[in-house]
Amino acid sequence: MLDPALVALAERLQGICVGRHLTVATAESCTGGLVAETITAVPGSSAYYVGGVVSYADAVKRDLLDVPVATLAAHGAVSAQVAKAMALGCRARLGTSLAVSITGIAGPDGGSEAKPVGLTYIGLATRGSDDATASAEVHRFVLPGDRAAIRASAAAEALQWLITTAEASS
Amino acid sequence: MLDPALVALAERLQGICVGRHLTVATAESCTGGLVAETITAVPGSSAYYVGGVVSYADAVKRDLLDVPVATLAAHGAVSAQVAKAMALGCRARLGTSLAVSITGIAGPDGGSEAKPVGLTYIGLATRGSDDATASAEVHRFVLPGDRAAIRASAAAEALQWLITTAEASS
Repeated sequence: MLDPALVALAERLQGICVGRHLTVATAESCTGGLVAETITAVPGSSAYYVGGVVSYADAVKRDLLDVPVATLAAHGAVSAQVAKAMALGCRARLGTSLAVSITGIAGPDGGSEAKPVGLTYIGLATRGSDDATASAEVHRFVLPGDRAAIRASAAAEALQWLITTAEASS
Repeated sequence: MLDPALVALAERLQGICVGRHLTVATAESCTGGLVAETITAVPGSSAYYVGGVVSYADAVKRDLLDVPVATLAAHGAVSAQVAKAMALGCRARLGTSLAVSITGIAGPDGGSEAKPVGLTYIGLATRGSDDATASAEVHRFVLPGDRAAIRASAAAEALQWLITTAEASS
């Protein structure tokens, strides 16, 4: 039932991560588990995928991903700052090589002029040489289409970025 | 792309939970986020769905869901005892009215005579009158079909049980 193009990305990610001994975790808000589900649809995914958090409510971002309350209050849940904190918190909590985070407005409600439906921030945290040097980057997207299309596009961007990062990891 | 029958269950669950002011969280192993994704595919799901954990690795069951290491060691990750601990830990951590857990063997590998592919335990924790009276029950299934079919059936059973429990909640 999953989009074959999404599953193909997950298969590719699995091949690269297993070959390079990299582990992956996920922190999802607007995609609500779609990235995790796609990754685990591939047999053998437990060889590199550790798990993740679906942090739909802000309290879950705070309690399970260590996103600071002050960051949520200052910038809102859909922000580059929260995406970065989610990725860093997820990677640290689950102890993986890589962690991806997604926070956005999938609609149909919840959009505004400043933060329209489709606005999505994806964060990617890497361990670096060790836990002390972990860092994260964030990309911003405004994705077109309806709720399902926005979620699918966000998942594809997250998987693609994981692939690129894993390929570049030594 | 999601199975319309699964999404229909999520829509029904949402209507009941929103009407009764019940909140829900999920703890998924073999379904890998499918229940969370199905719930959040429905617009407005943030009114009752708080979030969840995809606890693929045992360390995530331990660290994010408080499943005792001794329980994992004694019974294995796919067991009634671990399903119960996952549901109770998830409900307590996320502070919801209800929490569902799923642990099973989706295959194609990982099965044995004692624990065949398709063996699935679903746990459901309820708060009771308050947090101190929280309790959980577990159902055991041996689900037919391939990996995708087993995961979809497990998700359907989890959603159906949440519906039945929510309907019976006062």
